[in-house]
This record gives sequence, C-alpha cells and structure tokens, in this order.
Amino acid sequence: MKPTIKKSDFVQSLEKGLKVISAFDADNAQMTLTEVAKKVELTRANARRILLTLQYLGFVQCADGKQFSLSPKVLTLGYSYLSALPYQELAKPYLQDLAEKVNESCSMSVLDGYDIVYVARVQTNRIMTISLGIGTRLPVYATSMGRVLLASLPDKEMQEFINGLQLLKLTENTITEKDKLIERIQLVRDRGWALADQELEIGVRSIACPVKDKNGKIIAALNISGHASRVSKDEILETYLPHLKSTVAHIENALHKL
Amino acid sequence: MKPTIKKSDFVQSLEKGLKVISAFDADNAQMTLTEVAKKVELTRANARRILLTLQYLGFVQCADGKQFSLSPKVLTLGYSYLSALPYQELAKPYLQDLAEKVNESCSMSVLDGYDIVYVARVQTNRIMTISLGIGTRLPVYATSMGRVLLASLPDKEMQEFINGLQLLKLTENTITEKDKLIERIQLVRDRGWALADQELEIGVRSIACPVKDKNGKIIAALNISGHASRVSKDEILETYLPHLKSTVAHIENALHKL
Repeated sequence: MKPTIKKSDFVQSLEKGLKVISAFDADNAQMTLTEVAKKVELTRANARRILLTLQYLGFVQCADGKQFSLSPKVLTLGYSYLSALPYQELAKPYLQDLAEKVNESCSMSVLDGYDIVYVARVQTNRIMTISLGIGTRLPVYATSMGRVLLASLPDKEMQEFINGLQLLKLTENTITEKDKLIERIQLVRDRGWALADQELEIGVRSIACPVKDKNGKIIAALNISGHASRVSKDEILETYLPHLKSTVAHIENALHKL
Repeated sequence: MKPTIKKSDFVQSLEKGLKVISAFDADNAQMTLTEVAKKVELTRANARRILLTLQYLGFVQCADGKQFSLSPKVLTLGYSYLSALPYQELAKPYLQDLAEKVNESCSMSVLDGYDIVYVARVQTNRIMTISLGIGTRLPVYATSMGRVLLASLPDKEMQEFINGLQLLKLTENTITEKDKLIERIQLVRDRGWALADQELEIGVRSIACPVKDKNGKIIAALNISGHASRVSKDEILETYLPHLKSTVAHIENALHKL
C-alpha cells in the first residue's frame, strides 16, 4: 500500500526535519542537540542544521542556547489539515450534544496506515489510562472505530490490510486471529455498527458507526466509549446506539447540504 | 526577535516542505501539483519532489494521481507539541467545568510571534463568525488573552514587541494607538485580568487571566468569551471573573504538584 518513490525524487532533508519535529513528545519536551541527534539517528551536523532551520522558521525554540523545544507554530501544520476537513468543524457541536446526552466521551476518527487517528473528541469523564486527544493514534483492530473504517474498504483491500496487520494481545479480549477479525468486520458491514468490548484496554467498551458522504462513501467513524463497570453490552446497544445513529444522521444531513 | 541563521546552515528544502504542508487549508483542501507550485511559489520540479516525498512519508495523499491532499498523519506533527505541554492535558477538564458553569466558550492560549495560538478550547455556543479550534491564531493586541500574555513580558521586551506591532482597526473598538495599548497592559498587570470588549469582532466580549507556573512565570492565558448581547461588561466582571479566577487557581494548584 505504501507508494514507491525514485531515489532522485526523495527529499531526504524534508524527511529528517519532520522526524525531528515528531521526536518531541511528553517525555522529551526539551532536548539538546545531542539528544535530538541520538533519538532521530542523525549526525550531529545534520541535526544541528535541521534544528537551526526549524528555529529560524519559528517551529522550534531554544531557551538557553542548549535546550530545544517545539513552539506553538507547529500547530499550524496539523491545523491546516483539520481546517481542510469540512466534516470536522461541522461535526463538533453534534459530538458535544451526543456526549452530554449519554454523559460519555465521544470521538471521530479516520484511517491512517494501520492506525485510526482522532480528528475530534469530546471528553466527559477520564475513564482511560491513555490520554486521548486530536492526533492520537490507536490500533485499528482493537477499536470499534477501527473496525468500522476497515469495513469501509473494498473486500480485496480489506483482506490485504489484515494480512499486513500485526495483532497484539492488548487485553484478554483482543482478537488476535485474522480469520476471526475478518468475521467481525463482515458483521460490522451487515449491522452498520461495531462494538469493542475491552479489547484495547480493560474497563473500556465502545460502539462506533460510520459517517458517509453524499455518495455513500465512508469518510470517518464516530464512537461513544464508556466504562465497562457503568454500562453493560446490552445497555450500550439499547441506549447508546440509537443516540449514536441519530447523531450520525444529523451530521450526514448537514454534510450533504455543503 | 527573529533568530539569524548562516546561509550554509539553512536547509531550504525543509522550509519548502513545511510551506507545502501549510498551504493546504479549508479553501484549498485538494490541490494539483500546478496549484501547489503556484501557491507556495516553487518551480514545478521542486513542488513535485516535495509532494512525492510527503506522499511517500504518509503526510500527503493523492486520490487520482492528480489531486493532492493532506493525510491524517500531519496531525502527529502538532500533536507532538501538545503532548509535550503538560498544562494543556491537565487544564482540559477544568476548562470543561468552567464552560459548563458559565455556559460560554473557554479557551487557553500561548504567545507565538505577534499572535496568540489556541492550545485548548471548549466551545459551548457558536457565537463567532470566525471558527476557532486548536492552532487558531488571533492578533495579540485585540484579544483579552493576548493582552494578558503581553503583560507577562518584561517591560523592555513588551515595549519592543508593541513597537513591532501593526495595529489594524478590526472593529470600531480596536485600540490602534500604541500608547493607549501600553496603558491598557499596565492596567492588566495591576488588576491581574484583561477585558476585551468587541475589539476583535463586534458582538464578542471576553475576559482573560494568566496561568502561572511554580516560579510565578506566566505560561498561558485562560479566557471566557460571551456574546455582547447576552452579557454586559459589569456582568462579566461580577459573574465570569470569579469563576475564571477560581478555575485558574485549580489549574495552577494541579500544575504546581507536577
């Protein structure tokens, strides 16, 4: 699935620069030149030129001449993506209403490689040990939204995708057999929704539905996730699912008018 | 204020790549190679190599071999900044509570160049014609959060900053005289809060307070913004300000325990 590129077309310093930006995270909010070079596997000279360029362009700041950190300008890179997604802005107020109605966190995500990526989220209660925000990536196979998005692929593409997956046993409930995963995805196609029961993390149940564009193409998934001790599987289907479906209908209705 | 860089240290293709990513927005969600080259002022050959590299790295997708668009992976670039900000994650639930209490939108921002940049936002009502999300940039001089952040600068730096500003009359209320702006910033320092009354957009009033770290350094601004027809200036001070101050106290308390 990965596109190929001729060596003469590949801009290596662009790859290096994006790697340096991505290297900063909660555990590495500030790094010295040496630390950046080590983490991104660059020579010191290369890392230095990249950091100085990023600093000059305003994407990186350097407090004391030694400790580099990202500056808020990097938000304009991801933000340019979000602002180009009409359904993200449009969906937000509906997600907010849904979260208030069911008093649980609601999210919207899209497929990227073997992960789902959050493009919108309204959090009501902090039920997960993982902190989730826009840009968070979660494994496609262990999440309700992931299975909805997998179900949206044409049969052959879906099979190839699953062939390429590495299924890790994240909890005792995670499906790790490819045949069983394909069965579950067929079920999602028949039913129009996916349920994940503590497959990503013990204590978290979630239900997801697809969001379709004017032409019936699935463009994103929407979910509600709740604590397993608060809601049974039956309650999710009886209470959450109708609310989720009605929210999707409202979003699609607004989207198709664009 | 802009750092200098030697020509030999500057990685030009990194600048070009970041410009291409930033070129995509709501009005240009999909662009052809020719359109990208024109918008970013690159040669076709340059734009082509950059787009192919970004596509290979997963930051750009190409639907039909012609129309390029950003892929969700670009969100990971901004996410690395947000995840490195401890106070952003920490502040979110408090912002949510505050927004529910006052039933108005609440935001958190930091200074970047001559703009404020939103790092967190809870929207309750859509009162503004501008759509605001994480990464949104607004002019520092016409916003309550901007004036709080300006007030946090040492005197000399604040003066230099204001000297460099271009004050545009965004509404009839916008302060466009530098002396008057400095006066207002002194007032913010004395009072510990800033009020902006329809200076960015007619119909929007907002009040902001600074958030300080353990050492008393201002690291962000927090605000409540409401529709001018719903809340008078007096009501903002009597009702919103105490809630805002108490939220800041909670956030700082949690922050100082880190």
